[in-house]
Amino acid sequence: MSRKLYHGTAWYPELWDESVILHDIAKMREAGINVVRIGEFAWSTMEPTEGAIDVSLFAKVMTRLHAEGIDTVMCTPTATPPIWLTHQHPERLHVDDRGVVMGHGSRQHICTNNKEFRQRAALITEAIASELGRMPGLIGWQLDNEFKAHVAACHCQNCLSLWQEWLKQRYGTIEALNEAWGAAIWSQQYERFEQVPHPGPTPFLHSTSMQTAHRQFSMASIAEFADEQAAIIRRFSDAPVTHNSSVAFHVDNERLFERLDFASFDTYASAENYPAYLINCDLFRNYKPGRGYWLMETSPSNSGSIQGASVPHPQGYVAAEAAAAYALGADAFCYWHWRQHRSGCEQPHGSVLSAWGKPTIGWTNALEVEEARRVLEPLLLGSQPAVAETALVYSDRAKAFMATEPLKGMNYRGLMTGFYGRLLAMGIHRDVVPENVELEGRKLLLTPFLPYVSETFIGRAMAFAERGGVWIIGPFTGGRTEEHTIQTDAALGKLEQLAGVEAVFSYPLDGSGAIGEAFGMKAPLGMWGTVFETHGASSVGTLVDGLTPGLSFLTEHRVGDGLIVMLGAMPMGEEGDAMLRAMLDHYASCAGVTLRTDATSGTLVAPRVESDGRELWVIVNMDGRGGTVTIPDGTVDALTGEPVAAGSLAVERYAYRVVRLREEE
Amino acid sequence: MSRKLYHGTAWYPELWDESVILHDIAKMREAGINVVRIGEFAWSTMEPTEGAIDVSLFAKVMTRLHAEGIDTVMCTPTATPPIWLTHQHPERLHVDDRGVVMGHGSRQHICTNNKEFRQRAALITEAIASELGRMPGLIGWQLDNEFKAHVAACHCQNCLSLWQEWLKQRYGTIEALNEAWGAAIWSQQYERFEQVPHPGPTPFLHSTSMQTAHRQFSMASIAEFADEQAAIIRRFSDAPVTHNSSVAFHVDNERLFERLDFASFDTYASAENYPAYLINCDLFRNYKPGRGYWLMETSPSNSGSIQGASVPHPQGYVAAEAAAAYALGADAFCYWHWRQHRSGCEQPHGSVLSAWGKPTIGWTNALEVEEARRVLEPLLLGSQPAVAETALVYSDRAKAFMATEPLKGMNYRGLMTGFYGRLLAMGIHRDVVPENVELEGRKLLLTPFLPYVSETFIGRAMAFAERGGVWIIGPFTGGRTEEHTIQTDAALGKLEQLAGVEAVFSYPLDGSGAIGEAFGMKAPLGMWGTVFETHGASSVGTLVDGLTPGLSFLTEHRVGDGLIVMLGAMPMGEEGDAMLRAMLDHYASCAGVTLRTDATSGTLVAPRVESDGRELWVIVNMDGRGGTVTIPDGTVDALTGEPVAAGSLAVERYAYRVVRLREEE
Amino acid sequence: MSRKLYHGTAWYPELWDESVILHDIAKMREAGINVVRIGEFAWSTMEPTEGAIDVSLFAKVMTRLHAEGIDTVMCTPTATPPIWLTHQHPERLHVDDRGVVMGHGSRQHICTNNKEFRQRAALITEAIASELGRMPGLIGWQLDNEFKAHVAACHCQNCLSLWQEWLKQRYGTIEALNEAWGAAIWSQQYERFEQVPHPGPTPFLHSTSMQTAHRQFSMASIAEFADEQAAIIRRFSDAPVTHNSSVAFHVDNERLFERLDFASFDTYASAENYPAYLINCDLFRNYKPGRGYWLMETSPSNSGSIQGASVPHPQGYVAAEAAAAYALGADAFCYWHWRQHRSGCEQPHGSVLSAWGKPTIGWTNALEVEEARRVLEPLLLGSQPAVAETALVYSDRAKAFMATEPLKGMNYRGLMTGFYGRLLAMGIHRDVVPENVELEGRKLLLTPFLPYVSETFIGRAMAFAERGGVWIIGPFTGGRTEEHTIQTDAALGKLEQLAGVEAVFSYPLDGSGAIGEAFGMKAPLGMWGTVFETHGASSVGTLVDGLTPGLSFLTEHRVGDGLIVMLGAMPMGEEGDAMLRAMLDHYASCAGVTLRTDATSGTLVAPRVESDGRELWVIVNMDGRGGTVTIPDGTVDALTGEPVAAGSLAVERYAYRVVRLREEE
Repeated sequence: MSRKLYHGTAWYPELWDESVILHDIAKMREAGINVVRIGEFAWSTMEPTEGAIDVSLFAKVMTRLHAEGIDTVMCTPTATPPIWLTHQHPERLHVDDRGVVMGHGSRQHICTNNKEFRQRAALITEAIASELGRMPGLIGWQLDNEFKAHVAACHCQNCLSLWQEWLKQRYGTIEALNEAWGAAIWSQQYERFEQVPHPGPTPFLHSTSMQTAHRQFSMASIAEFADEQAAIIRRFSDAPVTHNSSVAFHVDNERLFERLDFASFDTYASAENYPAYLINCDLFRNYKPGRGYWLMETSPSNSGSIQGASVPHPQGYVAAEAAAAYALGADAFCYWHWRQHRSGCEQPHGSVLSAWGKPTIGWTNALEVEEARRVLEPLLLGSQPAVAETALVYSDRAKAFMATEPLKGMNYRGLMTGFYGRLLAMGIHRDVVPENVELEGRKLLLTPFLPYVSETFIGRAMAFAERGGVWIIGPFTGGRTEEHTIQTDAALGKLEQLAGVEAVFSYPLDGSGAIGEAFGMKAPLGMWGTVFETHGASSVGTLVDGLTPGLSFLTEHRVGDGLIVMLGAMPMGEEGDAMLRAMLDHYASCAGVTLRTDATSGTLVAPRVESDGRELWVIVNMDGRGGTVTIPDGTVDALTGEPVAAGSLAVERYAYRVVRLREEE
Repeated sequence: MSRKLYHGTAWYPELWDESVILHDIAKMREAGINVVRIGEFAWSTMEPTEGAIDVSLFAKVMTRLHAEGIDTVMCTPTATPPIWLTHQHPERLHVDDRGVVMGHGSRQHICTNNKEFRQRAALITEAIASELGRMPGLIGWQLDNEFKAHVAACHCQNCLSLWQEWLKQRYGTIEALNEAWGAAIWSQQYERFEQVPHPGPTPFLHSTSMQTAHRQFSMASIAEFADEQAAIIRRFSDAPVTHNSSVAFHVDNERLFERLDFASFDTYASAENYPAYLINCDLFRNYKPGRGYWLMETSPSNSGSIQGASVPHPQGYVAAEAAAAYALGADAFCYWHWRQHRSGCEQPHGSVLSAWGKPTIGWTNALEVEEARRVLEPLLLGSQPAVAETALVYSDRAKAFMATEPLKGMNYRGLMTGFYGRLLAMGIHRDVVPENVELEGRKLLLTPFLPYVSETFIGRAMAFAERGGVWIIGPFTGGRTEEHTIQTDAALGKLEQLAGVEAVFSYPLDGSGAIGEAFGMKAPLGMWGTVFETHGASSVGTLVDGLTPGLSFLTEHRVGDGLIVMLGAMPMGEEGDAMLRAMLDHYASCAGVTLRTDATSGTLVAPRVESDGRELWVIVNMDGRGGTVTIPDGTVDALTGEPVAAGSLAVERYAYRVVRLREEE
Repeated sequence: MSRKLYHGTAWYPELWDESVILHDIAKMREAGINVVRIGEFAWSTMEPTEGAIDVSLFAKVMTRLHAEGIDTVMCTPTATPPIWLTHQHPERLHVDDRGVVMGHGSRQHICTNNKEFRQRAALITEAIASELGRMPGLIGWQLDNEFKAHVAACHCQNCLSLWQEWLKQRYGTIEALNEAWGAAIWSQQYERFEQVPHPGPTPFLHSTSMQTAHRQFSMASIAEFADEQAAIIRRFSDAPVTHNSSVAFHVDNERLFERLDFASFDTYASAENYPAYLINCDLFRNYKPGRGYWLMETSPSNSGSIQGASVPHPQGYVAAEAAAAYALGADAFCYWHWRQHRSGCEQPHGSVLSAWGKPTIGWTNALEVEEARRVLEPLLLGSQPAVAETALVYSDRAKAFMATEPLKGMNYRGLMTGFYGRLLAMGIHRDVVPENVELEGRKLLLTPFLPYVSETFIGRAMAFAERGGVWIIGPFTGGRTEEHTIQTDAALGKLEQLAGVEAVFSYPLDGSGAIGEAFGMKAPLGMWGTVFETHGASSVGTLVDGLTPGLSFLTEHRVGDGLIVMLGAMPMGEEGDAMLRAMLDHYASCAGVTLRTDATSGTLVAPRVESDGRELWVIVNMDGRGGTVTIPDGTVDALTGEPVAAGSLAVERYAYRVVRLREEE
């Protein structure tokens, strides 16, 4: 990819005649679109009958786009297999956890582990890659579309064999599986791998170990499909490969992007819930460190389907989204989609042009985005997002554990977004990182809602702490083994010793009257909690009411030059929120976190480092209420070069500013 | 049918012994019942084993009824096939959209497209018709019972072939289908009709075109079954044929009644929601213009099943229902049902006699109904409902579109009843009409919630407007093609030009802050909206807040001697209700609507025209709070002949009055 | 069983290694555990491959337990068949009412009517019984676990044949079935028993008769399985046999315990809803009169699974539960379970030790229970619960009727617990009794929510009334026949005559404005009601508003020396509650009920009779708010021998007292 900021859109030229195509391209130029994503669902256009592959339409479109200065991300169309691949082949179809067999007419209806599917997917991808892989203007590839967005693990007979094979690889012997899963319980024990079923319908619940393993199997399978597809493309093309993923799908993004070239995501968060938008930027930046991520899909106005449409974004918000995405490291900000569908089921979804070719309510948003892109591009191409001192671990493995064991409806993504939102509101610059993160250069490490903490992770985190870092463990972290069973040596296993505590009780706090006191404030404690006696650690938060008064729910333990902080229970409600902020504030200080501003809640400050080492702040108001941030002495407006008065700088509703700090800052 | 008003009931003599039958008939006479409906579910009584048909019980019952002066509507029993027709024949059973195969023991469990079913249905109907078709007292036929009340389209293998055949008839070539449905999207394209599936389980949504077509196929199939059955009966009987339908079922009533002889319906609306009762009267009157409709089923007290019973009607309400039904054109007002079931699943349903033969709480209601019938009969037999100047189009095709594309839970029936309720409350006499209505003599035409407006309809409506009529289009009208795709020339296609507007944006208004101003008032605008620039039309309502201020949501355009009014968005809440009423009031005036009274909301005035041209008003209080209406000079009480003082006439709770206006009025 | 009070726990030694087993036993001794229940789900441990049975682990464990003074209840493991019994045998699996076939991995996934299952269950049970049946320390047997807790009737093909066979046995001829079920309705009639389906998916509802019969068939089948299993055990062991049942399961407990040796139950009611706990004690005591019941499972703290955990019991509540259970006749109070599971799906469930072997929050509860047990044991072993003068009939047959016909969500268990709670709060000592109860010695008989009242019951109840008892019938009692059809002679059949009333109307009162007046107070009447004219009876409660004012909803009729009270409608809300209490108070007085105290609501007084005839009161505060009861003259503290002052005695939060009344009291 060339060094520029991209402003892009998904586009489906296969659905329209040539006059529409030409009109669309002209309007793209008018809106400043410089990259389009095509081919995503076009398998039946490319291969209308089995074996008759013709991708010349896309070659022609790419040529035209290139002539107009618009680059292309080409997609493989494997999310929507043509009818000839599934007709009269029910055995190739996806089967859900109730045994319902999917049918043709939507997407993701095929089993992605099916051999015939894999073969035909390989052939179409090879055809596309070999025909288009070296075309001018081609700057990247997207595999498939939104893996596992609509479906989770497949329960077909073929997947059953693969699942059993996967278990054999993992456990070696059936005895090992029985032991790992504690399968003697409820006579679940197996004699042979061939007996292990899918976790399908049962009168009561399947075991945690089996359920979580099955999720992992499914996530591994789809990642392998991605690997296989990427390998085909790379035989014919040097353009980098990605996938438009999401925190919402049934995938392990860390694993998925491991062997892809760059990270990209889709998001449709509401303006009101802008932290759910920003967490993606701070997360996907970290799947491929040092490489810009793409926001591959977001709406220019509102999402929607024939089942309903979301509230359109307020005027100005989409440009704020774009400024924030670019500032936080995005190489591209792309819409879904350019021209409203005339058919299918997503006609009510926002687009930039209507089905009849006129600007929609998203059009002016696109113009504002393009304005922001043009203004920011020179500054952003000459700088990098500052590496955050604060790292919040986000794990799709943890998400799988909590999907298996949600207790009272605990939702990993929601809980993590809440946690993230506190850092954001407190002006703490943060990286949201996968488990396999490098901790070099970090000061504050947060691992909430991580039921299983691997030995490897513990090793890295302890080294980090010994070097002076502060590691805050919990809430709800460490109580499960890799096999999703309960620890049998101690409630939190090895973590207790490392944190200088002994877990005395681990129990459900909701409704039990538990009140915690810490940092001079009190708050109810909830969810599943673990409470401690200190064995070396100091108690920082103590239960003052409920079933176990006097025990600690928050402790700190000096390790080398750093601290292990153990948060055993979740402070709840508004008081809990205040307590969590006090905790984060306190330990950010302890850790010496400096990448932090006093921006009012709702206003983002994205710090960046220029190639000469100077620091830029991209300031973006995200909540539509405007905000302020205190500017240090010697700051200049990076766009105009004019000095910016020290003190409070106001940012208007959805506005953005870029300031350059004095070098010695 | 002889010229009289009928007071009737459903009755199941096959379930009881002769003494009960005799007792029931005696009590019917006491209550003034003059018609009964029998045979509805009695297939296993008539044909206990395959081929052994004996309908003599019903002949005997009809003879007895006739002797007692009670007429009969004979039913075909095809809604409840006997066990011998389905036992060990799963392929004959109805399959729902999740693939679940229905079983024996309830009703509508068979596939009505199944050939063996059709053959056996033809044989039993032929036997009934040939045996009973010329019996004295037989005044009509009812086919089956409540077609598609419990089920929608069948997803069996046989229906799959018929569906494919139906598509072949409709589209000719698969290419035409692919183009019509825009099936290139998501690689939905088909190579052959044999590949098109039912819209069964998929990971995400099926296309609008396919879903809506499948609903139409199902509605066409059941209508064809009705045609087939009616044809059999007509070979043996001159009595007219109907079906007890409803706005709630999965049928196209306009098509269904096209080839039946008279219209009838079932309703179980609560007293509180009396507009949902009255809309049926104003609608079913118009399926067979010039012919009285039947209210074939309503409860004498409460509806119910073993899953729960509704609130019993307040004392007096059932008689008000009957008076209103007769006044609005009903030939019959009939109960479901006479004697409480002792078995089955509807034991808690209201009836006139209990299972032990005593009067229920519905008994006095029946006596009051009979009193009303006797009082009104002479006046009503000598008059006809006045043709309304105001026509509100009600379309089961539109209902199918909105079932496919409900957006945020939009419910066609609910929305239409709301719209209807405004006309009712404003005292505007109205016809609720099918799409294929004659507009001769109309002044105000309303087509809300009609996503697709056919060329034919547009032609008729434009001619109507040119002749001086006012046509109010929308909200939510015209944005879809016949194939349930989006228009590609303009948001509302040809309608824009005809209405003198250009749709600038079409987008979801809910939550977007849209406020409209019209008729000196403001209201929030909601649902999916289309907003305009005027190109010839005048703006009547303008957006004053939200994403698109300054554009119009309500316009009027002079066409010939009339007006085309375009309402692009739905005014919401109480303020929206006031705005809609102001709009209706304004355009009723513009259109010169005179069939309108100032009756207080909750009191119905049904205008009728006597054979000598004089006008009667049947005034009925429906809301139980009593009401008033201003009476013009020279009015007399049509029942007593006494003058009625001009000015405000009070009508008591649930009371009815009939007044005759001075001829020159 | 030896004469002692048991303090027990479920335990799963097969899941742990020997060191854990020894640690567990040591801790059991520390907590005073004197009985454990083992083997419950251990089939795959006992018979890891088909036919290779080895129960020596359990023999070894029992030997060790016995050496430590701990008795054993041995279980059959049939709730969790091993994989070899179902793998590749879908025909052996349980099928739900939607046709979904269950799979291995949870429990109750097999069809308990399957022949192969029955054979293998017989073999494993025989092996266990023959090996362990005479071991020292073995004091009882538990069959299976929580029959029909997770599943209801099985809908497999084999069950279909059994169901048809069962019907053949019940009805003899298909004509009799058709007549009994009123199957002519909706052409449900059958020609042969082989045609009768399961009540599976249908477009609308199955008939009440069929649904209720199917529930009865299923309840009979599981009871027969229990009989069969018990018979096997008895061939090898003299220890008594029970099952851990519940009011929540799909079983007929009266029938189930008929041929078992003692009654036991599981309960997990919340502390807040303590009447739902106590009703079990008062009910299960009466399944095997004269024999102590067992509380086989309750949590030492909280229930839970990976789907969520309940609120842990407040400190002190579990000991109050134990004191109450023992006082009300329990021989045992047992936990589920001893050591937290490390795997499976119930890891969050409360236990006494954690998975890592430490005391949980339940540990001190267990110590408090043991303290109570030790304190109470001498007094309770020397006394028996007083037979209550007040009997409240609780019928799983009635529950089945109401499951078939719930009307507006009426829930038998909830309604009965509400009724029970009133007696409890009023200090009236009560037996909750099955239908087949002996009424000798009773004074007040209550039969609310009993849709069908058998001839046998009527005979016994009338004899009871004639001897001077007061029988309160209703609400919602007597309106259905044995076949779950409506009566055809009178709304309440024979009961009307016996109660000296004639039911005039039977209809849904909710929302109808019905207000009843009785005992000087008014209350809304709701649910389905029957209202009367008196024919010999006196009206005690009259409708003063609604559709049927002036009729009675509450009557009394003198019969011999007693009274038949007919309550036709349910007084609702707070006012209704007050009216029901007034009614119970009045008729308790009429009946001469003396086993009653003025204990404040929330404090239980369990009266017991010592072997020398003196009366003990065990007083337990259950609501955690403390309470008082008036103590008569001459009372002594039964634990200390000290006099207790007459007058108000205070009982602290969750505390218990035992007092001995003066003999002449």
